[in-house]
Amino acid sequence: MDLVKELLNGSRLALARAITAVESEYDNAVDIMKAIYPKTGNARILGITGAPGAGKSTLTDKIVKQYLAQGKKIGIVAVDPTSPFSGGAILGDRIRMNDLTLNENVFIRSMGTRGSLGGLSKKTSDVVKLMDAFGMDLVIIETVGVGQSEVDIVKNADSTLVVLVPGLGDDIQAIKAGILEIGDVFAINKADRDGCDKLNVEIEMMLDLDSRELAWRPPIKRTIASKDVGVDELVEALDEHFEFLEDSGELATRRQERTRDEIIAMINEQIGRYIADNIVVGDEFNRQVEAVNQKESDPYTVVSTVMQQVLKA
Amino acid sequence: MDLVKELLNGSRLALARAITAVESEYDNAVDIMKAIYPKTGNARILGITGAPGAGKSTLTDKIVKQYLAQGKKIGIVAVDPTSPFSGGAILGDRIRMNDLTLNENVFIRSMGTRGSLGGLSKKTSDVVKLMDAFGMDLVIIETVGVGQSEVDIVKNADSTLVVLVPGLGDDIQAIKAGILEIGDVFAINKADRDGCDKLNVEIEMMLDLDSRELAWRPPIKRTIASKDVGVDELVEALDEHFEFLEDSGELATRRQERTRDEIIAMINEQIGRYIADNIVVGDEFNRQVEAVNQKESDPYTVVSTVMQQVLKA
Repeated sequence: MDLVKELLNGSRLALARAITAVESEYDNAVDIMKAIYPKTGNARILGITGAPGAGKSTLTDKIVKQYLAQGKKIGIVAVDPTSPFSGGAILGDRIRMNDLTLNENVFIRSMGTRGSLGGLSKKTSDVVKLMDAFGMDLVIIETVGVGQSEVDIVKNADSTLVVLVPGLGDDIQAIKAGILEIGDVFAINKADRDGCDKLNVEIEMMLDLDSRELAWRPPIKRTIASKDVGVDELVEALDEHFEFLEDSGELATRRQERTRDEIIAMINEQIGRYIADNIVVGDEFNRQVEAVNQKESDPYTVVSTVMQQVLKA
Repeated sequence: MDLVKELLNGSRLALARAITAVESEYDNAVDIMKAIYPKTGNARILGITGAPGAGKSTLTDKIVKQYLAQGKKIGIVAVDPTSPFSGGAILGDRIRMNDLTLNENVFIRSMGTRGSLGGLSKKTSDVVKLMDAFGMDLVIIETVGVGQSEVDIVKNADSTLVVLVPGLGDDIQAIKAGILEIGDVFAINKADRDGCDKLNVEIEMMLDLDSRELAWRPPIKRTIASKDVGVDELVEALDEHFEFLEDSGELATRRQERTRDEIIAMINEQIGRYIADNIVVGDEFNRQVEAVNQKESDPYTVVSTVMQQVLKA
């Protein structure tokens, strides 16, 4: 395909078009992904997530500038899974990164859930692969929130930076529990705020509680992204983690597991579509649902009927 | 089954056991759900969600006390989908509701994601049905956060109360976009804080932006739950919305759509399990994944092979 050829030859326009094709599920999307697949696996993939209001975008901006200074080419996928109905509401945020969008070594793409509930993690993974095949040295996946969707999205990364901030309420601190466990490196941003030491101790305690035998103890770095304080040390920690992944063989393991999980997720999604397009639209299914509404049947009976109808075994 | 008989006869122990069976996916879980299904549909189901730190638990507590004073029997399902690895970290929170747990007209159950990633919405729905069949007049689904998982969970309710609080950061306000669209009634809790009027205006503006032709304009009520201020008016608004649902026929429509969505979700989950138990464990699948890792194949080819292997059509 010409589009793929152009993308692999470094055309930013082709990259943008390929991403749109994948995001919008155009007919050629799968062919594009198949064609670029052998060219993937070279980029380092960094996930950035954390509590709302932690200043992730500003910090991402500073991190990107450090890597740009090292001569790296960088792709950024900013994902907002929080707005299921209206699409990426928060992404106005990206405006802050405006000066990056003008840099020819940076390619930024925002993704919301518009029209793609549930498939966002898969699409993120595809966009990362496109940027990888395009020749990016580093692809950053930045997410907005702290829920299960964000965790799923960030799992597409090789290593994950979790950004926290002192002095948010108890509820928010507790919510961190979910993302704490995916953090390879922690940043306490806005570290000049009250409560920084307390938060640091809390994170250390949670890391102590981790019962897994881990060869890597996630470091905690303090930053004030808006003043560029601590970003050097943070980037060093990120680099160290990636070196650890490579040297320990963990990188290969993580990527193989990810490939496997991804294939399984794709199978489930495809079958879901098959059901949506072939079963759920039929009169027979509508009759069965109506019987459930009349309490003449129950959902469990309908499900097992459909299973027999659909599956070979 | 004895357990179902006892549950329908009002045994709280049987209810607790049935919930555990469903939550832990015991062998008898589906039989229990089938048996109680004809007895469901009588309870009113109220979802409560909102920004972290908004004081949802305290407000829920006060709302429950109002309904208890009306002689109602109430089930509460408190769901925490934020911690994918360690299960319900936040639910210590529930301790605040301790005096309710002693009330014989209240049954509280906390649910986390422990061992059931993805299936939490379905399990919540099942637990609600068990409480419904048990004879609860009102079942409240309370969730902790603001992500897609919370939205999915709250969609199991007939009407949804969204709890907000003045003076949280921009990011958090933006996150509300996702949950604003599922709100039938809004509460601005901690209404004595600065920024209450501003938040009220913001919500009204977002409601104005809603392009759907709606017969119900979600009211915004101000509360200070900790001081029991405004709770009467909030409960009135909740009752009015439920009356609106009944009178307009919207209740029946919503429930029928929910049943349909639920059945489709169950089909997808069941097939996912079938794949996990029968395909993914096989040598053949492992060989195909290994070929992808070696870049001799690609995920898309594996997926279509499996689809042909599994589906009848």
